[in-house]
Amino acid sequence: MNHDIWIRQEFRELSRSLGFRYTSSEEVENRLTRIRTGMKKQEMESLLVIQKMNFYYLSGTTQDGFLFIPLEGKPLLMIKRELERAKVESPIKDTVPFRSFREMPSLIQSHTGKVPNSLGLELDVLPVRDYFKFQDLFPGTRLMDAFSILREIRKIKSPFEIDLMREAGEIGRKVYQEAKKILKDGMTEIEFGGLLEAVAKRNGHEGLLRVRSLNYEAYSWHVLSGLTGGIVSQSDSPMGGLGLSPAFPVGASFKAMKANEPILVDFGTCYHGYQVDETRMFSIGKMKPKFIDAYKTCKEIHDAVLGESKPGADCEALFVKTLRLAEKLGYKDSYLGPPGLQTRFIAHGIGLELNELPFIAQGHSYPLEEGMTFSLEPKIVFPGEGSVGIENTVVVTEKGYEILTPVGQEIFQV
Amino acid sequence: MNHDIWIRQEFRELSRSLGFRYTSSEEVENRLTRIRTGMKKQEMESLLVIQKMNFYYLSGTTQDGFLFIPLEGKPLLMIKRELERAKVESPIKDTVPFRSFREMPSLIQSHTGKVPNSLGLELDVLPVRDYFKFQDLFPGTRLMDAFSILREIRKIKSPFEIDLMREAGEIGRKVYQEAKKILKDGMTEIEFGGLLEAVAKRNGHEGLLRVRSLNYEAYSWHVLSGLTGGIVSQSDSPMGGLGLSPAFPVGASFKAMKANEPILVDFGTCYHGYQVDETRMFSIGKMKPKFIDAYKTCKEIHDAVLGESKPGADCEALFVKTLRLAEKLGYKDSYLGPPGLQTRFIAHGIGLELNELPFIAQGHSYPLEEGMTFSLEPKIVFPGEGSVGIENTVVVTEKGYEILTPVGQEIFQV
Repeated sequence: MNHDIWIRQEFRELSRSLGFRYTSSEEVENRLTRIRTGMKKQEMESLLVIQKMNFYYLSGTTQDGFLFIPLEGKPLLMIKRELERAKVESPIKDTVPFRSFREMPSLIQSHTGKVPNSLGLELDVLPVRDYFKFQDLFPGTRLMDAFSILREIRKIKSPFEIDLMREAGEIGRKVYQEAKKILKDGMTEIEFGGLLEAVAKRNGHEGLLRVRSLNYEAYSWHVLSGLTGGIVSQSDSPMGGLGLSPAFPVGASFKAMKANEPILVDFGTCYHGYQVDETRMFSIGKMKPKFIDAYKTCKEIHDAVLGESKPGADCEALFVKTLRLAEKLGYKDSYLGPPGLQTRFIAHGIGLELNELPFIAQGHSYPLEEGMTFSLEPKIVFPGEGSVGIENTVVVTEKGYEILTPVGQEIFQV
Repeated sequence: MNHDIWIRQEFRELSRSLGFRYTSSEEVENRLTRIRTGMKKQEMESLLVIQKMNFYYLSGTTQDGFLFIPLEGKPLLMIKRELERAKVESPIKDTVPFRSFREMPSLIQSHTGKVPNSLGLELDVLPVRDYFKFQDLFPGTRLMDAFSILREIRKIKSPFEIDLMREAGEIGRKVYQEAKKILKDGMTEIEFGGLLEAVAKRNGHEGLLRVRSLNYEAYSWHVLSGLTGGIVSQSDSPMGGLGLSPAFPVGASFKAMKANEPILVDFGTCYHGYQVDETRMFSIGKMKPKFIDAYKTCKEIHDAVLGESKPGADCEALFVKTLRLAEKLGYKDSYLGPPGLQTRFIAHGIGLELNELPFIAQGHSYPLEEGMTFSLEPKIVFPGEGSVGIENTVVVTEKGYEILTPVGQEIFQV
């Protein structure tokens, strides 16, 4: 059978019957309108979207390719490999096969009638070699940085996006519910993490978490027990854990989990590219009182931030407030990490990537807005002993917030 | 307890007792010698290594930071966050905390006595914004592209690296052995993939596979059954599968696996950063004769390439030979994908990343060398019906090759 014909005839129905939800034309149009407002402000005549998550956000597909957006006129989707599948997945009507970089200027010229005077590129992630290539391809065109425009429009989620995040939260709920049945005395952290992943995948978790960075890698199996919870590592988080090797020095390790230890499970799930992040505490038998008290403090800080989470609240002020609260409650030297290694944020924006706007953090003085989504994670670390924390992903609503990670907030004791 | 003191006193023993293997001083010295040969040839006075896998290769740690390598004199490890842990993990003796980019030129100057005249950077992956930052920081320094030097030295694996890949292969063997017990009629591809991941993690698989690319993502759960095996997608592989959504349009899907279908499991494992990649066929009951015949062809092509794999064999010639063999055996229009979408490689180099040298591929006319490692994967695709294939990871030895993925090569029928 011919592959292209099969895709045209069978693919939409097959993929929908197996759970695919496609981005609508209205959704993409709305995003394009907003991005054009940003382009206009910066006098950017056109934009070339390359990075996978921006590309997905603006086209609805992640087939390999480039999305050219002129300030006026229709966008052009150039697809490297699977054009027919991209046509099913994307509501963008103008699609062409992309065969080589050399052809790109003429593809654009045939589409818009001209070579653009200025072209926005994602300079926060675009490799230098590619930039040089674009300099050669578009010698008379001013190359501009489109990073901030793209970051700004993605920070407010649409109802469609929030609904996908709710689904991711539902997967997380199932994972934590089954976790109680899976956890056993003597099981290694990594075995537990792997079994949780299996539950998540069975329920539709896509496996990969995404973060916008050259070197930072996200992963779901962040299971730390007792002393591994007290280890700081490569990631910008209060505690990284031991991990499995110097090549993967974070997350679950071969340490066996034991009775009465604090077991921290920070597990992200991803549905249709949209992520939620959450943390819950587990213990085999009762956790030592020191950790129970610290957990209560995390919960108090968590609730205090959410109590003030609504449009207009200043992100930096919320962060600073938690520093004072932690100090008042006696955790100045353990809140968000050990002295000298404490992180300077308590929440990160989340959506298609784990490091979106907003950050409830030092140096981030801007207001929360309706439709922003963030993961709030107060944590307390005792080196050599363990760590505790709670984390939920929420969306800012008209008058407050809604939790997208609907698992009970008690310590899960087995 | 103080975190730094705890790391200094307890970390090495704890991590070793939980399976960590550290890169020796001799190993790193050898790599540094080889990279300096490359630098000398290109008249590169110094090199700044940033990307995580190059950084690990040359320092033994993946703690966040930068490795400065002068052509003469000692390398300098600058660590952003967890300096004490980096000191345990890396045999490099000169380590300093890295607090801000502004300080970098003076850190380098205090170490070497001068600001370098030329500085190599990894321009194949370094984001443009960072490049501009280095231009500002080192205004009188010529910034050079270090991509090819780094790629060249990493293509030949040391006995230590090959041993880590052998361990990864051992994890893979356990996964495929248990797979036969896990596979059930009616189970979804993604449930199967998740359970295989759980087995792999329990045995030390690090979960993430790494590939050197802005947009290409690697993953372990490439389980395709029947018609999903006939779907081409975003990745440059003969068949991508359906996946779970337009955001992750590759690999396992919610399709239930049924009797007599070809079930292709392409599962990579990773140990201490070192990966092996392998593919085996499964079926519930007997696979249809069409697929059994095609599998035999894949096996014949696989064996023919290995039969000629030894130092000196030309990679492109090996690839072209397989095209002729596939045509002779009647698979011209299904070998390596459907017509118009056929890939142009039959093996990719592998190690810390999935797209290293060598490629047994069109346009790659260079000889195999002792110590090269590659994953050989002849595959045959029938759109609308399914696909078959076999894949093994091998190391080129003095006189031939050694298979690093020691699973039986029969079809696994349950």
